[in-house]
Amino acid sequence: MKLRYPILIINFKTYIEATGKRALELAKAAEKVAKETGASIAVAPQHIDLRLVAENVEIPVLAQSADPEPPGAHTGHILLEAIKEAGAVGVIINHSEKRIRIDQAREIIERCRNLDLTVVACAAVPVEAGAIAVLGPEAVAIEPPELIGTGRAVSREKPEVVTNGVNMVRKVAPEVKVLCGAGVESGEDVKRALELGAEGVLVASAIVKAKNWEEKIRDMALPLVKR
Amino acid sequence: MKLRYPILIINFKTYIEATGKRALELAKAAEKVAKETGASIAVAPQHIDLRLVAENVEIPVLAQSADPEPPGAHTGHILLEAIKEAGAVGVIINHSEKRIRIDQAREIIERCRNLDLTVVACAAVPVEAGAIAVLGPEAVAIEPPELIGTGRAVSREKPEVVTNGVNMVRKVAPEVKVLCGAGVESGEDVKRALELGAEGVLVASAIVKAKNWEEKIRDMALPLVKR
Amino acid sequence: MKLRYPILIINFKTYIEATGKRALELAKAAEKVAKETGASIAVAPQHIDLRLVAENVEIPVLAQSADPEPPGAHTGHILLEAIKEAGAVGVIINHSEKRIRIDQAREIIERCRNLDLTVVACAAVPVEAGAIAVLGPEAVAIEPPELIGTGRAVSREKPEVVTNGVNMVRKVAPEVKVLCGAGVESGEDVKRALELGAEGVLVASAIVKAKNWEEKIRDMALPLVKR
Amino acid sequence: MKLRYPILIINFKTYIEATGKRALELAKAAEKVAKETGASIAVAPQHIDLRLVAENVEIPVLAQSADPEPPGAHTGHILLEAIKEAGAVGVIINHSEKRIRIDQAREIIERCRNLDLTVVACAAVPVEAGAIAVLGPEAVAIEPPELIGTGRAVSREKPEVVTNGVNMVRKVAPEVKVLCGAGVESGEDVKRALELGAEGVLVASAIVKAKNWEEKIRDMALPLVKR
Repeated sequence: MKLRYPILIINFKTYIEATGKRALELAKAAEKVAKETGASIAVAPQHIDLRLVAENVEIPVLAQSADPEPPGAHTGHILLEAIKEAGAVGVIINHSEKRIRIDQAREIIERCRNLDLTVVACAAVPVEAGAIAVLGPEAVAIEPPELIGTGRAVSREKPEVVTNGVNMVRKVAPEVKVLCGAGVESGEDVKRALELGAEGVLVASAIVKAKNWEEKIRDMALPLVKR
Repeated sequence: MKLRYPILIINFKTYIEATGKRALELAKAAEKVAKETGASIAVAPQHIDLRLVAENVEIPVLAQSADPEPPGAHTGHILLEAIKEAGAVGVIINHSEKRIRIDQAREIIERCRNLDLTVVACAAVPVEAGAIAVLGPEAVAIEPPELIGTGRAVSREKPEVVTNGVNMVRKVAPEVKVLCGAGVESGEDVKRALELGAEGVLVASAIVKAKNWEEKIRDMALPLVKR
Repeated sequence: MKLRYPILIINFKTYIEATGKRALELAKAAEKVAKETGASIAVAPQHIDLRLVAENVEIPVLAQSADPEPPGAHTGHILLEAIKEAGAVGVIINHSEKRIRIDQAREIIERCRNLDLTVVACAAVPVEAGAIAVLGPEAVAIEPPELIGTGRAVSREKPEVVTNGVNMVRKVAPEVKVLCGAGVESGEDVKRALELGAEGVLVASAIVKAKNWEEKIRDMALPLVKR
Repeated sequence: MKLRYPILIINFKTYIEATGKRALELAKAAEKVAKETGASIAVAPQHIDLRLVAENVEIPVLAQSADPEPPGAHTGHILLEAIKEAGAVGVIINHSEKRIRIDQAREIIERCRNLDLTVVACAAVPVEAGAIAVLGPEAVAIEPPELIGTGRAVSREKPEVVTNGVNMVRKVAPEVKVLCGAGVESGEDVKRALELGAEGVLVASAIVKAKNWEEKIRDMALPLVKR
C-alpha cells in the first residue's frame, strides 16, 4: 500500500491553472496543508509535469493515466517505468475522461504490482467498481460522470452510489479501498463521503479553480483528520 | 519554421535505454554531435521526460504525440500548452505506433499554429503523406511500418516510397518538408534518403540501442552537413 | 463511378424510425421518389439492415462505415467483401459519428478500389475534405459537426464551408466530387448547396424523422433535377 | 437465459469462407447437427449476414459485437435493437479481436437485459473473466489470445486457465456460466473443456476452415450430449 487512507486526491486534469510551474505551486499548497493538518493528500499532475512535481514535494504523486505496454517501440505511450523513475508512487486509471479496456486495466494493474506502483481505478457506477476491483487495484474511485465538474457532490446528490459501491466492492474484493468523486466541492461533501463508507475522495475543479488553493484544500482535508 | 533542415530526428519511443535520466544522457550526446558538426538534430523523449530534456539541452525537443483538446477537464491527455511550457518546440503526430484520426490531426495542427509549435506528421505511404500534408504541418515523415525497427532502411529497400512521397507532397502542399524513416541505421542510409529528396530522417532503435550513442549519432548526422 | 451526381444520400444512422423493416420502408419511399423524379438518391441503412434493403430496392445502397481489415480473424468487424456481397455499391467513411484514422481511410479506399466499391468520405471542415480527397475516394462530404441534426443547414448558415471545400478539393484532387451535409432540411437548402458548387447532399434526421417520408424526400430531391 | 448449456458457439469472424451466402450454409450445417444430436449449438455470423442467418435457421444466433449507444444519431454503430429485430438472441462482446471498455461492457449488458438479449462476454485470463462476470452477462468465455487460431487448445495447453476461470467466476458471480475457447479443434478438446468445468466452448477457424463443416461440427458437438 503506497497511500494512506482516508485520502484526498487532487486531479489537476489539463486545467491551465494547474499546468507547468503552476502545477508545482498547487502541489506545494497541498503539501503545506498535508504537513499542517496531518491529512493524507496526493496530487495527480499532467504527465509532462509529473517529474517536476514529484521531485519537489514530499506528498505522494500519481500519474493521471498509463499505457499497459512494456518498454519498447511504443511512440507516445505513457510508460509505467518512466512514471516510477520520475518519482510518482502510482497511477489513476480508467478516469471517465480516459476510459480504458478491461484487458488494458488488467495489464496495467499487473505491471504496477511488479513495479511496486499503486493503482487507483475509476468507475462510473457501483457495478463497474466491483468489476474493476476484481482486477486488484489498491483502490477504486466511483465517479458518476454526469456529476463531474458540476459542484453537485456525489455524496450529497447520489449517496446510494457511494454506499452501493462500498457494498459491491466489499463483496467481491474486500481488500480494495473505495473512494468517491464527482462534484465534491467542500469539506462538508468530504465528510459525508466518509460517513457513507468511502475512504477518500477525488477532487479536481473545486480545488484547481479555487481562488485560494490552500484555503480550499484545508477545507476539504480537515474532515479526513477530524473524526 | 522551428526546425532547421536537413534534420536528424531521434525518437526515443519508450525504450528503457532512453527513459528518465538516460533520456537526458542520450539528448546530451545528440547535442554534443550537433554542436561539433553543425548538423541539425532534434530529440523526441517520452512525455514524462520532456521537461527534463528540454530544460537541459540546447537542441530542439519534440513531444512524441499530443492530444487536440484545449486546456480543461481532460484527465490523462497530453496538452499542447504543457508541451510548450516544458520547453519543447513541437510535436510528432500520427506515428505508426500512435495513429490518430484525420480530425484530430487537423485540430492539433491548427492549435500548434496558434501556439507557435511545429508539427512533424508521420505517414505510412506516399498518398497518406500527401493527405496529411494538406492539413499544413511543417513536415511529414514517411515511414513504411513494415520496415520500422528492422534495420532495412526505407531509403535502400523502398526508395520509390521516398521519391513518390516527395512528389506527392510537392504537388499538393509544396511548402511542407518531407522526411523519411523506418529501418534507417547508418550514415549511408541517411545519405541515400537525402539523395532521394528527403530533407531529413527519423531514427529510433538504430541510435537508442547503439552501444556508443555519440558515435552512432555522428555517423548518421555527418551526411546532413557534408554535401 | 458507382453513383450518379448530383445526388441525395439518406443516412439512416441508428434511428429507431429507420431500423429493421422500417429501414426497408424508408428505402422504398426513396426508390419511389427516385423513379418518379429521375433524381439520383442513395440510401445508407445500418449494417444489419444492409442486405434486406439492398436486395429489395433498385437504388444504390451504401454502408454507413467499414473496417479496413481483409477477410480473416476479425470478430465484429465490418468486412468490405460482405458489404459487396450483400448488394451495396459502396460505403460512407469517416462520418463525424464514426471517425477513423488516416491510415484506415487510405486502406479502405484502396480495398474498395479493388473490390469495385465506391467511397463517400466525410470531413468536418474544408481542409479535412482536401486531405481525405487526396486519398482518392469518389466523393467527399463536408459536414460541420456542430450543425448536424440542428436544422440549421450548412448551405444557409456556413455557405463558405461549402465553397471553400469545393475550392480546396478542386485544387488537390479535382476528380473528387464534393457533397455537403449537416442541418440540411428542405429543398431550398439542397438548392443552395448545389448553387454553392456541391454535387449533392447528405441528409439524415430531416428525412428519417419526417412525418411523411415520401413528401420530404420529394421536396429535397426535386432541386437535383429541376435546374 | 436464452442459451442452453453445455453449448458450442461457432464464431464466423470475417472469414471469407463464412461470408454472405456461405454464412447461411455454415449455419444450416450447424442446425442440422444440432437437430440430429440434440446438442446446443449457436452461431455468430457477421453483422451484415445476421438477419439472413437468423431468418433461416432455428438455432440461436448471436451478433459478434455491439455498441452501447441507444437508437439515435450514431452512424455506423451496431444497434442492439437492430440485432434483436433481425432475429438474433444475443451478442458476443469483448472478443480479443474487438475489445471494449469497461463502461461500454456494463452499458451493453444493462441494455441487453432490458431488451431481453443474452450476452456472452469474452476475457483473456481468469481475473478478467471474474471482472466482467461481475457486470452480469449470461456467460463469460475465457480465450487466451495467444492460443486463438493456433490449434493448440486451451483445454489441453492451459487447463489451469479454465479451472482458475471457473473458480474465479464462481467466487464473484456464481450465476454466470463459464465457457472457454482458443485453439479448440476437436471433440477431444471439447470433452476436456467440459471436464475442466467449462459449460461450453467457442470455436472459429477449426470449424469455419474445415473441409467438411458438418463432420467437424458433429465431432465437436457430440461431447456436449454424450456425457
